[in-house]
Amino acid sequence: MKMLINVPETVVADALRGMAAAHPELTVDVENRVVVRRDAPVADKVGLVSGGGSGHEPLHGGFVGPGMLDAACPGEVFTSPVPDQMARAAAAVDSGRGVLFVVKNYTGDVLNFDMAAELAEDEGVQVARVLVDDDVAVVDSTYTAGRRGTGATLFVEKLAGAAAEAGAPLERVEAVARQVVESSRSFGVALSACTTPARGVPTFDLPPGELELGIGIHGEPGRERRGMMTSGEIADTAVDAVLDDLRPDRPVLALVNGMGGTPLLELYGFAAEVHRVLGERRVAVARTLVGSYVTSLDMAGCSVTLCQADEELLRLWDAPVRTPALRWGM
Amino acid sequence: MKMLINVPETVVADALRGMAAAHPELTVDVENRVVVRRDAPVADKVGLVSGGGSGHEPLHGGFVGPGMLDAACPGEVFTSPVPDQMARAAAAVDSGRGVLFVVKNYTGDVLNFDMAAELAEDEGVQVARVLVDDDVAVVDSTYTAGRRGTGATLFVEKLAGAAAEAGAPLERVEAVARQVVESSRSFGVALSACTTPARGVPTFDLPPGELELGIGIHGEPGRERRGMMTSGEIADTAVDAVLDDLRPDRPVLALVNGMGGTPLLELYGFAAEVHRVLGERRVAVARTLVGSYVTSLDMAGCSVTLCQADEELLRLWDAPVRTPALRWGM
Repeated sequence: MKMLINVPETVVADALRGMAAAHPELTVDVENRVVVRRDAPVADKVGLVSGGGSGHEPLHGGFVGPGMLDAACPGEVFTSPVPDQMARAAAAVDSGRGVLFVVKNYTGDVLNFDMAAELAEDEGVQVARVLVDDDVAVVDSTYTAGRRGTGATLFVEKLAGAAAEAGAPLERVEAVARQVVESSRSFGVALSACTTPARGVPTFDLPPGELELGIGIHGEPGRERRGMMTSGEIADTAVDAVLDDLRPDRPVLALVNGMGGTPLLELYGFAAEVHRVLGERRVAVARTLVGSYVTSLDMAGCSVTLCQADEELLRLWDAPVRTPALRWGM
Repeated sequence: MKMLINVPETVVADALRGMAAAHPELTVDVENRVVVRRDAPVADKVGLVSGGGSGHEPLHGGFVGPGMLDAACPGEVFTSPVPDQMARAAAAVDSGRGVLFVVKNYTGDVLNFDMAAELAEDEGVQVARVLVDDDVAVVDSTYTAGRRGTGATLFVEKLAGAAAEAGAPLERVEAVARQVVESSRSFGVALSACTTPARGVPTFDLPPGELELGIGIHGEPGRERRGMMTSGEIADTAVDAVLDDLRPDRPVLALVNGMGGTPLLELYGFAAEVHRVLGERRVAVARTLVGSYVTSLDMAGCSVTLCQADEELLRLWDAPVRTPALRWGM
């Protein structure tokens, strides 16, 4: 598999150098692998910190900036960052009002963020933690006990980030994050495996003419392997899987997400089918975001995340944000 | 090749339905294939219209909105839209102050936009036209006489769009667009071919271990086929090819663009190398945009576009914009 890289060993560091070059509004510590908004710590603001394995870009580094994350800690590709990174990030963004860790539910991330919280608390930083576990496809998979964390992470970071930006205290920012987790579910589909720089070959074997329903963002096995389906059939399956678990009684935020290798042309066609299914199921859509935001390197495929939103969450969604990957209002 | 589609025949219409669903701030005429900002025509504003074959998303439909295009006309995949589409778009956006057509230099687009200008002028719309021909790789290629149009289209649409939004008359908007064309050059590299929905197999054969330097956005042959290169070597080649032709004496806007199938992680690493080369060549970078903006479906690869920018172009770049794919300040 050909890649636009120098050598596999420097992929993450090279990307961080690129972020530093392209985004002077961020402070990028390439050596210690922490991306921080340049004006951190922001006085009287709760800090939001996330992180996880690289390979899911723009998650998380692309979501650092006013109105969203204060800092992100990228690990190696598909590998949890180390506790030292999160502790360093917490120290860099804490204004004295505490820090919320947004943690995707993967065993390594959970353990390392827990250790980081202890380290940060030893340094006098108040830390709260929210676990994102939105993937309805599989419970107790290869890398995770319980449901896996995926697309809802974007909603948590945006909505809790807006609450923090507006000056909410740590308990309130944490409560918003928990509300978003409880209100969000996702389902993903892979049309191809992805290839990590270190291995250089696809992470699993998906034959021509087959797709994997309920895939994880590292290419973990899903619910079922099937013969190829149309965009409309995939939307039926994905949306119904989410709605079986979520049963929203309010309008939803919809993330129609590409896994990295799926063209935007196809993704918009899929968004049309997702809207069709939601209409048939009498679920109103308040906002739709279409794009490759929570990815698995070059994997072809898509995921659907729905978050049922009350007026307050809608207001937080519409609040200004200024990050490399999500930006409006400023 | 597996795709997230229903049937090849409806790919463009399906994507337009998705745009309509996801972007209530746009008016999407699915039948006639015209995407228009909802508040068009904007009183006393010059209209900006572009279009071209589909498969390059978010170009052009993703660039419709305040501060950029007033309307876009998507053709079939890699196929020029028909004159009727552009004429319809011109009529929809003309406030009486005239319309600028932004045309990528491909033979079909040039001919059809010329015919559309005649149609629109017959209806009393004053039309100017600017031809974007920034690709230094190849002159007189498969589909085009002269240099091909590619990444600079984004700069033309953003900068002329900002001038139009600020109330500039048609002559001035056209002059800004021409200045951007004259100040911009691009060079692209393919690591893989792309696959159109209609054919279902890659558009050309690029063996393992080889890349194509100077590729066109439809997969037209480039300058040279070579053994695989590192990201740093590709940056050296691409930036030097651009600088050989452009020789900027002012800071540049840099677009580090993915062709569709290249992960953002790799693209940021490439951006670091582009900045390194520009530093070595003593070219200052004023702004950098990293992402997959002018794509070729699922092609892996990248392109570099540089636009040398005076203070006025920088001001226009920083001006607010609100489109699906490029948005800040509102």
